Amino acid sequence: MSKLEDIVSLCKRRGFIFPGSDVYGGMAGTWDFGPLGVMLKKNIMDAWWKFFVEDRDNIYGIDAAILMNPKTWEASGHTATFADPLVECKECKSRFRADKITKGINESVTTEEFLATHTKCPVCGKENWGPIRKFNMMFQTHVGAVLPDDDKELANQNIAYLRPETAQGIFTNYKNVIDTIYPDLPFGLAQQGKAFRNEISPRDFILRDRECSQMEIEYFVAPNTWEENFETMRSLQHEFLENIIGLDKSNIHELEVPKEDRAHYSKRTIDFMFDYPGGEEELMGLAYRTDFDLSNIAKASGKSMDYRDKKTNETFVPHVIEPSIGVERLFLAVLSSAYTEDEVSGEKRIYLKLPQNLAPYRYCVSPLLKNKPELMEKAKEVYEKLRKKYSNVTWDDSGNIGKRYRKQDEIGTYECIVIDFDTLEDDTVTIRNRDTTEQIRKNIADL
Amino acid sequence: MSKLEDIVSLCKRRGFIFPGSDVYGGMAGTWDFGPLGVMLKKNIMDAWWKFFVEDRDNIYGIDAAILMNPKTWEASGHTATFADPLVECKECKSRFRADKITKGINESVTTEEFLATHTKCPVCGKENWGPIRKFNMMFQTHVGAVLPDDDKELANQNIAYLRPETAQGIFTNYKNVIDTIYPDLPFGLAQQGKAFRNEISPRDFILRDRECSQMEIEYFVAPNTWEENFETMRSLQHEFLENIIGLDKSNIHELEVPKEDRAHYSKRTIDFMFDYPGGEEELMGLAYRTDFDLSNIAKASGKSMDYRDKKTNETFVPHVIEPSIGVERLFLAVLSSAYTEDEVSGEKRIYLKLPQNLAPYRYCVSPLLKNKPELMEKAKEVYEKLRKKYSNVTWDDSGNIGKRYRKQDEIGTYECIVIDFDTLEDDTVTIRNRDTTEQIRKNIADL
Repeated sequence: MSKLEDIVSLCKRRGFIFPGSDVYGGMAGTWDFGPLGVMLKKNIMDAWWKFFVEDRDNIYGIDAAILMNPKTWEASGHTATFADPLVECKECKSRFRADKITKGINESVTTEEFLATHTKCPVCGKENWGPIRKFNMMFQTHVGAVLPDDDKELANQNIAYLRPETAQGIFTNYKNVIDTIYPDLPFGLAQQGKAFRNEISPRDFILRDRECSQMEIEYFVAPNTWEENFETMRSLQHEFLENIIGLDKSNIHELEVPKEDRAHYSKRTIDFMFDYPGGEEELMGLAYRTDFDLSNIAKASGKSMDYRDKKTNETFVPHVIEPSIGVERLFLAVLSSAYTEDEVSGEKRIYLKLPQNLAPYRYCVSPLLKNKPELMEKAKEVYEKLRKKYSNVTWDDSGNIGKRYRKQDEIGTYECIVIDFDTLEDDTVTIRNRDTTEQIRKNIADL
Repeated sequence: MSKLEDIVSLCKRRGFIFPGSDVYGGMAGTWDFGPLGVMLKKNIMDAWWKFFVEDRDNIYGIDAAILMNPKTWEASGHTATFADPLVECKECKSRFRADKITKGINESVTTEEFLATHTKCPVCGKENWGPIRKFNMMFQTHVGAVLPDDDKELANQNIAYLRPETAQGIFTNYKNVIDTIYPDLPFGLAQQGKAFRNEISPRDFILRDRECSQMEIEYFVAPNTWEENFETMRSLQHEFLENIIGLDKSNIHELEVPKEDRAHYSKRTIDFMFDYPGGEEELMGLAYRTDFDLSNIAKASGKSMDYRDKKTNETFVPHVIEPSIGVERLFLAVLSSAYTEDEVSGEKRIYLKLPQNLAPYRYCVSPLLKNKPELMEKAKEVYEKLRKKYSNVTWDDSGNIGKRYRKQDEIGTYECIVIDFDTLEDDTVTIRNRDTTEQIRKNIADL
């Protein structure tokens, strides 16, 4: 098994991540977080919120709806350009992303270029292709009282999309924020929330899914200060990824995106690449979006997006620096950094070397033996005492002590506390460290 | 203005809640939370999570995808029954929920019953109605490589829905959880997340919206223990609403839902009604869902949903008690409890009497005068000191001190700290209480 397969297997075995709608044979491109996954995900998202919003006095939160007025996506360019090249095999009717089944062509491939590649259909092996069509990746729905048997015109008037990014929920609220809390530049608006992309071929576990959670900041700045603010955001991202999330600096690589590969709205983009088990992949992006979004909203809505500088009285449309990160991508970066195999007493051991602030459980409390009432009672006492102090303490009295350690190692529990017969005598317990497997004795009062 | 209108106005004025897609003329039934709203919403949601999940050792988290395999909604009954009666005016083509524009009929109204009511169209005033049709409230979309010009059959194969409730994301993961963390009965699975309902007429501010956040627990119990567990959950709900959220007990009324009004899956339901400004409305529901959901999933998936009792070795399908609450409904209950008008020095004052654990800001720090550098410097010092201790401290040096108090009162800031010339002498500050407007002096060291 590859390391990625090992991680997928551990995620399912220990209740971190299950395939979405698993019980019904699945739903491609969706994933459900189980009890352990929810804890790790929440720790990651809360750490981001604390670092970027709560600990800063010029970044504020926003929580916009997923369903937005469709004008949003016309103004942002998504209706026109958020599309992949789709090609259909005329023999077996299978559909593919043209640039993913052929080598050396990019996503703006034309029908002629594609047909010249002599690619065989990965499903039926024949080579009889239809033309390349643009497939818009936004999920479409209808809002309001439209019935399936209604005429097409009426239905078309009611089209809405599941947002393909959280960013536009921030831009469309820029004026609301300016008019209510009057922030000085530079200031940021931060949002955590779901975004949806109808990927033709979802793949790579949670890296390329159809439904994901994003964490984005739109940082509004005076136009002539964009470079210094870009640098500020750039170093904050490193600080967050390395010091708060604990990713190894040597696994993060900045990629200066060349002009021809940048999104249409960006004048500078740095992709933060990460060494995933399957190879280097984008972890997050930092983009200078200029005034592209606000100016397009001003045009499309007829409302001014001007900012008036309180000191100089100058008015202008702010420019924007955007750090954008996918929760699932960060989650997998954390998991693949933590996943470790070693050998303990001649046996293979798997453990998650999670940073203490992200580990689902800080402590696991156990009685050495389950069938000794005096050990159970004492262990419960220690457990309840610790739970009052920490919210992330678990209890384990299943199987034997070796099995418990193996389980707690696999879910990344930082330390295991075992209550044994000595505890009854002298109030000391055994504390076992996850990473070193070393055991020391400590007085209960010192926990 | 009614009290509800006052609250809506304050929400927009102070950055709690804006109409969704406001800048483009809106998107009916959606709402965006602004900087202050996000803080209050997060405090409410975190309080729920802490009380029901973190502080309990038999309730675990789940975070399932919004897009689920459509078999989910066949098994749950939503495809067949999650529908409202839609009626169209043949004159002006307006569409309405039949039971909402006529008195004395319920949502299972027939065409004959409706036509007998002689209701005039609320838009054109004429009375020329089409037949009543069942309008399913699930938002529909298509997943996978389907283009708008594709044939209908292909498109139909790819239909998916935005989940109309979070509950099914829990039930479909029941077996995954049983197989990975082996919990003993009774145990609960809790989820916070978005749900969508294509309301024909969204209304009543955030009470009846098309997109909302739910907080649900499915509490799995042995069939013969459902009554005692129902009571346990019932008192936990009261404890949460009254002690944690701080709602006034006298505003909460239990409504024992009679058989004919209960959902098809429920053998007992208590609606927790709340005295909203517009009248009594449902705040949350507590339902005994029997084994309806798990048994239907077993039938539809062909997989056993049996639970094996570790002590007795007996196997059975667990029964379920479900407390379900909408975040927006709770948010509005909190806001309407907090919204208060009084008179201070002969002038009308508005303030939000929010419990301390929910208020967006614990403290606001202010210099008495902005143009005195020594006051500014000292105030900044106090501000930075407090921010290190609390995450929810704000700064305000706008306008004069009276204006600041008015603003902080309206956003529910618990206490205002003012740095004046005495502070420079003796290190004491003025602390003003939001509810009493009383001011006392305190030493900075004692904050």
